[in-house]
Amino acid sequence: MSSLLHRRKFTIEWGHCDPAGIVFNSRFFEYFDWGTWSLFEAALGVKPAELGAVYGIIGIPLVDAGARFIAPARFGDEVELTSQVSEFRRSSFDVAHQLLVRGALAVEGKETRVWAGRDPAEPSKIRSQAIPPEVTARFEV
Amino acid sequence: MSSLLHRRKFTIEWGHCDPAGIVFNSRFFEYFDWGTWSLFEAALGVKPAELGAVYGIIGIPLVDAGARFIAPARFGDEVELTSQVSEFRRSSFDVAHQLLVRGALAVEGKETRVWAGRDPAEPSKIRSQAIPPEVTARFEV
Amino acid sequence: MSSLLHRRKFTIEWGHCDPAGIVFNSRFFEYFDWGTWSLFEAALGVKPAELGAVYGIIGIPLVDAGARFIAPARFGDEVELTSQVSEFRRSSFDVAHQLLVRGALAVEGKETRVWAGRDPAEPSKIRSQAIPPEVTARFEV
Amino acid sequence: MSSLLHRRKFTIEWGHCDPAGIVFNSRFFEYFDWGTWSLFEAALGVKPAELGAVYGIIGIPLVDAGARFIAPARFGDEVELTSQVSEFRRSSFDVAHQLLVRGALAVEGKETRVWAGRDPAEPSKIRSQAIPPEVTARFEV
Repeated sequence: MSSLLHRRKFTIEWGHCDPAGIVFNSRFFEYFDWGTWSLFEAALGVKPAELGAVYGIIGIPLVDAGARFIAPARFGDEVELTSQVSEFRRSSFDVAHQLLVRGALAVEGKETRVWAGRDPAEPSKIRSQAIPPEVTARFEV
Repeated sequence: MSSLLHRRKFTIEWGHCDPAGIVFNSRFFEYFDWGTWSLFEAALGVKPAELGAVYGIIGIPLVDAGARFIAPARFGDEVELTSQVSEFRRSSFDVAHQLLVRGALAVEGKETRVWAGRDPAEPSKIRSQAIPPEVTARFEV
Repeated sequence: MSSLLHRRKFTIEWGHCDPAGIVFNSRFFEYFDWGTWSLFEAALGVKPAELGAVYGIIGIPLVDAGARFIAPARFGDEVELTSQVSEFRRSSFDVAHQLLVRGALAVEGKETRVWAGRDPAEPSKIRSQAIPPEVTARFEV
Repeated sequence: MSSLLHRRKFTIEWGHCDPAGIVFNSRFFEYFDWGTWSLFEAALGVKPAELGAVYGIIGIPLVDAGARFIAPARFGDEVELTSQVSEFRRSSFDVAHQLLVRGALAVEGKETRVWAGRDPAEPSKIRSQAIPPEVTARFEV
C-alpha cells in the first residue's frame, strides 16, 4: 500500500523569476501550497474552499516548510510538481513535493501541516484535532 | 487647502525584480496598497487593521487601479512613494501615488476605492456607504 | 478581420487571496502578464523565453497597466482569462484582458507594451522599435 | 567572538496575508531574503546590487531553506526580523532568521547559501568558490 501521488503540470511565468533569471525561492513555497490543495482535492473529492466546512475544521495550517534547491527553473520551463503525503500522524501530516524540470529533479520540498479546528472550550483558539480515519484512508492507493 | 501627502521610503528587494533586473509590474500595485494604508493611518490615527471596526465598515476595496511606468526601479534602489487622496466623492475616492527613484518620477499610480460596509437589508452583501465628513476632514491640510 | 483572442483557464489559489478572502489586486496584474505571454506564444509559435532572440528585441516591457474590478474572485474559483491585442501601433500595442468567474466578467484589464530593442547608437539604452508586419499579421484571424 | 546579528523592523502588509488573516507562508521566505541582503550590506558595507562586482561572484544563491511557524503574524503587526550567519563553511554558509511579533518568536528560518562564481573552465557554468577570509572576518563581532 502506498500513498496517493498527485501530479500537476504548469509553466514557469516571467513574474516568478528574479534578476538571476531563475524562479525566486519564495515562489516554490507557493507551488507547494498549490500542490497540497490539489492533492487533497484529488484524494477527498472535496473542493479546497469547502474542506473546512465538510470536515468541521478551520484548515490545514503549515507548521514547518523546507526546500532543497538542486537545479534552477527558468521562465517558460514546463515543470511537473508531484505531491504526496509522506506520513500521517494523529493530528498532523507531512507532504513531500518534487518539482521536475524536463524530467529531472530540480527542487525537493516538505511541508508539515496540522488538521486544525476550534478549541471547543475556547472557540477563539485553534487546536490540532485527530485526523479522521476516513480521511487518511482516501490517500491509500 | 490641500490634501495630506504621505511619504514612505523603502528599498527595492531582490525578490521584487524580474529577469530584466527591474521591479515586476505587479509589485508596484503592492506598493500602492502599502501607500494607501499608510496614508490612512497617518490621516486618521487608526491602525489599518482596526479601520473597519472604528468606522463600522468592512474595508476600502479597490474598484479601479492603474499605473504608468516611466522609468525602471532596480534591486537596491532607495525609493520614495508619495500617496495622496486626489478626490473624495460621496462613497468612493481616488488615491494618487508617485514612486520616485533618486528624486525622479519612475511610476505614477492611481487607485479608486470604495468606503464599503454591509448592506443593512442583506448583511451578506457589500455596499458602498457615505464617507463620514469627519474622515474626509482629516485629509485636509 | 479581428484580433486573435487567447483563452487560459486556471484556478484561484489560496496564496492569491487576501484577508477579505478575495484575490489581492496585484495578483490580477500577474494574471494579465501570464495572458500576454500565452497570447504571444499562441500567435507567433515562439516560446516566450525565445521571443527576444527570435525578433532581435529585448522584450515587450509594460508602459501602462490598468484594471477595473467588477466582482471578486475567490479561492478555488475556476476562472477564464481572455487576452487580445486591441490595437497595434508603430512600436507599441495594447492588450485587453477579461477575467471571467463562472462566465461573468469579474475584472477587466488593459496593458500597453512596447516592442523594445537596444539603441544601435548606444546599446546600454533601450528604445522602442517598429513592430514587424509579419508579427502583427499573426494576430489577425 | 560571536556573529553579527542584524535587526530589521517592518510592518505586515495587507497583501502579505491570506484568507486566514495571517501572513501566507511564502512571504516569510521573502522576508528571510530581505534579511540576508540587509545583513550582508551591514557587515560588508557593500550595496547588495554591487556584491557580485565587488567580490567577483555571481551571487549568493540559496540551496536550502526552511521555516518553522510557531505563531501567526497578522496585518498591521510591527515585527522584527533578526538575521545572523550561524556557520561559515569553505564555500557555503547558513543564515538563521527569527521573526518576532511583539517580542515573541513567531517564525524561525534557516537558509543555506553558496558563494557562487563562474567556472573559469566553462563560464556558462556556476560553481561554488571559497569565501574570502576578509568576508567572513566582517561578520565577527
